[in-house]
Amino acid sequence: MKIPPVKGTRDFYPPEMAIRNFIVDGWKDASLRNGFEEYDGPIFEYLKMFQIKSGEEIVEQLFSLTDRGGRELAIRPEITPTLARMVNQQINSLPRPIKWFSVPRLCRAERPQRGRFREFFQWNVDIIGVDDEIADAEVIFCALDYLRQVGLTAEDIVVRISSRKMLAAVLRSIGIAKNELEPLYALLDKRSKMPGEVFEKMLADTVSDETKRKKILELMNLASIEQIEDCFNFSEEIKESVGELRRLFELLDIMGVGDFCRFDANIVRGLAYYTGIVYEFYDKCGELRAIGGGGRYDNLLKQFGGPAISATGFGIGDCVLGILLEEKGLLGKQLNQRKPDYFVACADKELFLKAVEVTARLRAAGKSANFSYKSANLGKQFKEASAQNAQKVVIIGEELSKNNELVIKDMNNGQQELIDLDKFFG
Amino acid sequence: MKIPPVKGTRDFYPPEMAIRNFIVDGWKDASLRNGFEEYDGPIFEYLKMFQIKSGEEIVEQLFSLTDRGGRELAIRPEITPTLARMVNQQINSLPRPIKWFSVPRLCRAERPQRGRFREFFQWNVDIIGVDDEIADAEVIFCALDYLRQVGLTAEDIVVRISSRKMLAAVLRSIGIAKNELEPLYALLDKRSKMPGEVFEKMLADTVSDETKRKKILELMNLASIEQIEDCFNFSEEIKESVGELRRLFELLDIMGVGDFCRFDANIVRGLAYYTGIVYEFYDKCGELRAIGGGGRYDNLLKQFGGPAISATGFGIGDCVLGILLEEKGLLGKQLNQRKPDYFVACADKELFLKAVEVTARLRAAGKSANFSYKSANLGKQFKEASAQNAQKVVIIGEELSKNNELVIKDMNNGQQELIDLDKFFG
Repeated sequence: MKIPPVKGTRDFYPPEMAIRNFIVDGWKDASLRNGFEEYDGPIFEYLKMFQIKSGEEIVEQLFSLTDRGGRELAIRPEITPTLARMVNQQINSLPRPIKWFSVPRLCRAERPQRGRFREFFQWNVDIIGVDDEIADAEVIFCALDYLRQVGLTAEDIVVRISSRKMLAAVLRSIGIAKNELEPLYALLDKRSKMPGEVFEKMLADTVSDETKRKKILELMNLASIEQIEDCFNFSEEIKESVGELRRLFELLDIMGVGDFCRFDANIVRGLAYYTGIVYEFYDKCGELRAIGGGGRYDNLLKQFGGPAISATGFGIGDCVLGILLEEKGLLGKQLNQRKPDYFVACADKELFLKAVEVTARLRAAGKSANFSYKSANLGKQFKEASAQNAQKVVIIGEELSKNNELVIKDMNNGQQELIDLDKFFG
Repeated sequence: MKIPPVKGTRDFYPPEMAIRNFIVDGWKDASLRNGFEEYDGPIFEYLKMFQIKSGEEIVEQLFSLTDRGGRELAIRPEITPTLARMVNQQINSLPRPIKWFSVPRLCRAERPQRGRFREFFQWNVDIIGVDDEIADAEVIFCALDYLRQVGLTAEDIVVRISSRKMLAAVLRSIGIAKNELEPLYALLDKRSKMPGEVFEKMLADTVSDETKRKKILELMNLASIEQIEDCFNFSEEIKESVGELRRLFELLDIMGVGDFCRFDANIVRGLAYYTGIVYEFYDKCGELRAIGGGGRYDNLLKQFGGPAISATGFGIGDCVLGILLEEKGLLGKQLNQRKPDYFVACADKELFLKAVEVTARLRAAGKSANFSYKSANLGKQFKEASAQNAQKVVIIGEELSKNNELVIKDMNNGQQELIDLDKFFG
């Protein structure tokens, strides 16, 4: 009976696994270099944990299940609610600031397409307990530190930055009521994914007043932070949020990544819990979906039953990033190649067990080593050694039977030497 | 609103994550050293994939779900069916032997207890396409190579080895019908987990003939392979399976791990698909459940719609192993400690942004570096640096403003030196 893989999932054969490991290992290195510690939670949580704060879009994409004890669960579509739960559970013993990262496996029942699967890996980097743009700057820097390290530059990547607080303040200043904000965010977040006329029609359905609609479009088209002050009634709220954006850009400049970053009022983010600065990472060609995004979510811990503690962080998935790295030619030469230290060949079938023994001793000594199951002739074994990229070949032949010696051939320069077996392992 | 974690799951805070990483990284190192390549599959598969061949026990423990497209799925309780599916899909292009490993996240709705959770990680090592005990020996060696490398010895660990083929041959030779084998396997597998009287009562329910029951108990109590020949009607089938066991033990001796291994007819394995040699890894104190186990499953690929190709492999979970490593005192000193290369401190609040800049430049140069958000006095920043195990502290003070110089203090020997900023990054 043949059973196919499930729609939207991926099989990681060794070549695909090498790419996934290259991406994930790079994420981990950058996180540690930037002072973050790794955590993880369970693959499923109570369903209601994702229904409350993540927003409608994610709820529709949940893989939910009921276990034998009648618990309503869901496979995690994101890890931030788990992070909030875990931090709340140990809030009194965790030293702050909490600088944590994770690389969770996540599932969302989205329509599979280029760069989008129903199961993916997402790099999450968060700082909890720092109510200052330095934390937002540090997580954005961490992402860019990784992207630069794998070879991407400001020619390839742009971080589009805005602020939910600024957006809310401006929208309120032009007369949008507080309860109208949520549906408007959802619409504005999708603006770049639909034709202009469609957006304007949907906007008209959401906001009936034409003057307000014009103001919203004006805001969306602003080219710089300065223009916010020029164009809108400058309330204290707007002033504060613009000040935060200014300071963030200043910090990113000081950190040496200012050339990657630009203001873009179109950035709103789909998740419901963001409260301040928000941003998304894009390839500059603009042909791919966002590589990732994040922002400040100062109310989430409290909403999950904890104290009021500010938090900020981002998520970057492996799918769009993988396509970008491949397109830019950054995968091939950087992938960890298989390169065993030794291949143990035997000159005679009779010596096969001796080859097994030597291989086992090499491995026990911490060396990577292989041998051939086939006890074929030496030529074929050398071919196998080459195919595996073995650095050295150990030949078990009559030298061993006669003088207890091994022949070691360096596959890089072709040189051979004789070594006493006991000295070799001494 | 406070939402608890789901029963039987684990939260990995940084200290627990460090243990998980220590275990998983060791598994990966040992696999690569032994010539295995990494693969992975999706977290869920079609439900029927696990219903067919894994056996009743696992089916009862499935976390199953129906997705929005009406597909009946299950979170994977093991990865072997996925391995069979993946190998079958590319059977014509994969060079053989296939030596693969994986560290899947698995879920089983078992009753949580010491060393058993509903979600765990399992090291899987398999060889496909080698119909010889050398493959069984190599996967067992790989497991022992790992266990030795983390500090466990033949004083701590025993591999109990038997053969389903031998068991079937002996049972048939004493008159057990073929269709009676499966339920008998399930019972024999549980023998060591129940009191003797309970087992004998259940055995009487399964096998009515007293003479047969006596023979079965006799087999279970055999102390060596030799005794099989002495005690049972020696059919060709028995002879062949005993020969395989003999050769396996010979190979394990040659590989230098014979002292870990012993014959034990009680080893049957719970999974339904095993066909030949089977084994389980135990701590020698015998207080813990099995650390892991495996065996030969020569029919599985064919049962999943592929060709008849022999296969063998094992799974070792992280839960019991973690307890054992902790009990033996093998975790503490081996865990990767956080040890940033640099901590950047500023002598004056005014210099905070300079500290941010230097930290960012260090990270961009591939060094791990931290700074304090608080711009507290130098003493407190040094305390923070010590708490983080920083190797060196960079002090941003008037030396920088006046002479463009940094003070670098080596935290290991207390020595300080002045370095020109540009030279430092040169």
